[in-house]
Amino acid sequence: MVKQYLHPGIFGSAEDPVIQSLLDSDFYKFTMWQLLHEFPRFGAAQVAYRFANRTKKVRLAEIVPIERLREELDHTRTLRFTKDELLYLQRREANGKPMFSDSFISSRLEPFQLPEYHLEKGNDGQFLLEFPATWDTGINWETIALETMQELYTRQRMAGLSRFEQDTIYATGIVRLAEKIRTLKQFVEILIIEFGSRRRAARVWQAFVTAMMASELGAQLRGTSNTRLAMDLDLLPMGTNAHELQMVMAAIMSRLDDDRQLVESSRTLLGIWQVLYGDALSIALPDTFGSKGFFEKVFTPDYAAAWKGTRHDSGDPIAYGEYVINFYNRLGIDPTTKTIIFSDGLDLPTILKINEHFRDRINYSFGWGTNLTNDLGLDTLSIVIKAAEVNGISTVKLSDNPAKAMGKPEDIARYKRAFGYDDSNPYRECIV
Amino acid sequence: MVKQYLHPGIFGSAEDPVIQSLLDSDFYKFTMWQLLHEFPRFGAAQVAYRFANRTKKVRLAEIVPIERLREELDHTRTLRFTKDELLYLQRREANGKPMFSDSFISSRLEPFQLPEYHLEKGNDGQFLLEFPATWDTGINWETIALETMQELYTRQRMAGLSRFEQDTIYATGIVRLAEKIRTLKQFVEILIIEFGSRRRAARVWQAFVTAMMASELGAQLRGTSNTRLAMDLDLLPMGTNAHELQMVMAAIMSRLDDDRQLVESSRTLLGIWQVLYGDALSIALPDTFGSKGFFEKVFTPDYAAAWKGTRHDSGDPIAYGEYVINFYNRLGIDPTTKTIIFSDGLDLPTILKINEHFRDRINYSFGWGTNLTNDLGLDTLSIVIKAAEVNGISTVKLSDNPAKAMGKPEDIARYKRAFGYDDSNPYRECIV
Repeated sequence: MVKQYLHPGIFGSAEDPVIQSLLDSDFYKFTMWQLLHEFPRFGAAQVAYRFANRTKKVRLAEIVPIERLREELDHTRTLRFTKDELLYLQRREANGKPMFSDSFISSRLEPFQLPEYHLEKGNDGQFLLEFPATWDTGINWETIALETMQELYTRQRMAGLSRFEQDTIYATGIVRLAEKIRTLKQFVEILIIEFGSRRRAARVWQAFVTAMMASELGAQLRGTSNTRLAMDLDLLPMGTNAHELQMVMAAIMSRLDDDRQLVESSRTLLGIWQVLYGDALSIALPDTFGSKGFFEKVFTPDYAAAWKGTRHDSGDPIAYGEYVINFYNRLGIDPTTKTIIFSDGLDLPTILKINEHFRDRINYSFGWGTNLTNDLGLDTLSIVIKAAEVNGISTVKLSDNPAKAMGKPEDIARYKRAFGYDDSNPYRECIV
Repeated sequence: MVKQYLHPGIFGSAEDPVIQSLLDSDFYKFTMWQLLHEFPRFGAAQVAYRFANRTKKVRLAEIVPIERLREELDHTRTLRFTKDELLYLQRREANGKPMFSDSFISSRLEPFQLPEYHLEKGNDGQFLLEFPATWDTGINWETIALETMQELYTRQRMAGLSRFEQDTIYATGIVRLAEKIRTLKQFVEILIIEFGSRRRAARVWQAFVTAMMASELGAQLRGTSNTRLAMDLDLLPMGTNAHELQMVMAAIMSRLDDDRQLVESSRTLLGIWQVLYGDALSIALPDTFGSKGFFEKVFTPDYAAAWKGTRHDSGDPIAYGEYVINFYNRLGIDPTTKTIIFSDGLDLPTILKINEHFRDRINYSFGWGTNLTNDLGLDTLSIVIKAAEVNGISTVKLSDNPAKAMGKPEDIARYKRAFGYDDSNPYRECIV
């Protein structure tokens, strides 16, 4: 009668490889990657992508066996894009034209293998994990390596639990997801993009969450940033570009030793991006070197008018939104024709607060990450992989949260000067 | 990659028959049944067991298709006790001797088939469901028919939900179970008996809950009232006797038209029970005709000294416990050598409150029913099957909650008179 107990198993099998597809990566990796392919002067830059665990108290290298990590990374290097996957990319369109060139697909993606990595255990209980390669070969490691690290961590944590504690984790995840869905159904104006690949508890769990959001929320789920998931679930793959693009470009240009070139590098990027994708992917990411500098010095009135909108990824989202609305108003641009993608550490209360504040004043969507795909009562990690060096030069990222500035102190000072960064209030100009 | 979503399926398959074993019944059914077998004068009484849905607002017969119910009940009538099941009962012991006689097992159980039933749809949207039979053939319908009704209701409710809403129900159940287990682990003095067969959401869910309690709580789970589950999970099958025993005995004896015979019938039962089971199953159920009358008129000092304790099934549990402690104290019996099984509408706060109040003052366990096996966010039903008539005479049940008295008004008045029932306070004597 009672032979065995049923197991939700919504994390998939712990024996399966974590990564089963090179498309199991953020869509913006592919749009940025194509830029590197089309502009080989940038693609050929030597970029050192470096892993970091910001959750220092978790001594990750003492939890995840280094051999398991190596085994997963090695397996991932055996993967190739399949015919179906290449066909899928080939069919993506931007403004009625193919989004990806045949050249990019056949000469860059088809023969592609992830490049070698360097892995060792540090004295601080953390992994030293680096991906040194040309930019256009290393760029696809980031999401995939973070997914691998996070899922191996999840597996280790789950293995230490009883069968029942495991079930409780699954169940907690489902109950919290149900609460999210129930609430979102009451606010049909709230649009969600699933943005949680890199911090997901597990691949299969992300798929479960996304499939449920799709079936329960319909058009309120605009799409997913996970390319393979978009393909499998017939959702819109979403995403435009990441901080690394501006960071690496600035580092390359900074060799000229001219502060104006730093600002110019960001504006150059807008131009190149528009050449490649027209308006289709015209969502700018202003906070890389401080949003204030971006709006004042980079995002000229022409770009502001042409581009669909911006993505908010640090700082106070309400202050940011007010700043952006003011910005458009001053230029005589109707903010309700523009969009903000909010994507910084969202949870349900934050989403509701932002929605309440900006309803009917500007368009917006929510790119929901960690708290969507890793909200099961398990500890979450804050892990990142950053393009730390370019041709031997350190990169810089400022963001709209002064505490989060990344890079050498003298470089940070230089970038702040160049972009007119205001430590006391990143949105000073327009809040008044 | 994402072929199908995983389904906890912890309610089992909706295609499976609800009842798969004649042992899928409360253990006290078998201990009472043997009494009827050993005392054929009682066993031969014509008893009409009658179904009632106390949750009137749920028009059950408009939700559960009558053909489905008939199909299940008919299937249950094809079941027989298996060799393994009979062997299992044969091995039960009371005081080192077999609990069940060979005669009971071979001549009563081995050839047993559930007797016919009468089913129709009433005008009020409820089922008319009756099991008219001799007492010793009809007695095993109650638990089984209630389990059937409840699970068909669950299946209908689940069928109306989306795949995700179904998952949410499962998950809610697991999360609430985990909360119970977590809390109980903090109070190792709290002992639980799983008492939830008749109101369980589903057979497989009850098995899941009980297995998890067993594996997580160890000896804090004393056992289960479900005989088949006890066999499958190697737990102690628990339970002694039910209200029906006193109700039917009183109705049989009431033919003598002597009020004293009503009280005497309950005392006779104690005697017969002790003959059959010694001290092993000596837990009395005082509230059938009011606990006050039971302790004053039925439970003589000799019985009070010999019997392990009593079960609380209605009225205020704190007042009841105080009453019982006083009762033992007055007789010079140390209450800490005696036990109370609390089994009335328990939930976690009530269990904690009772535990806090009586710790170290008397022994106690908690027979946890509906709120343990049907706590998933689904509506629960209050359904019962009562021995309503015996040889054409209506039965009576008073309980310690005056609002719950059951029977004809003139009969209720007579029983109250006979047992000295106090409407204003069922525990008046000893609370002071």
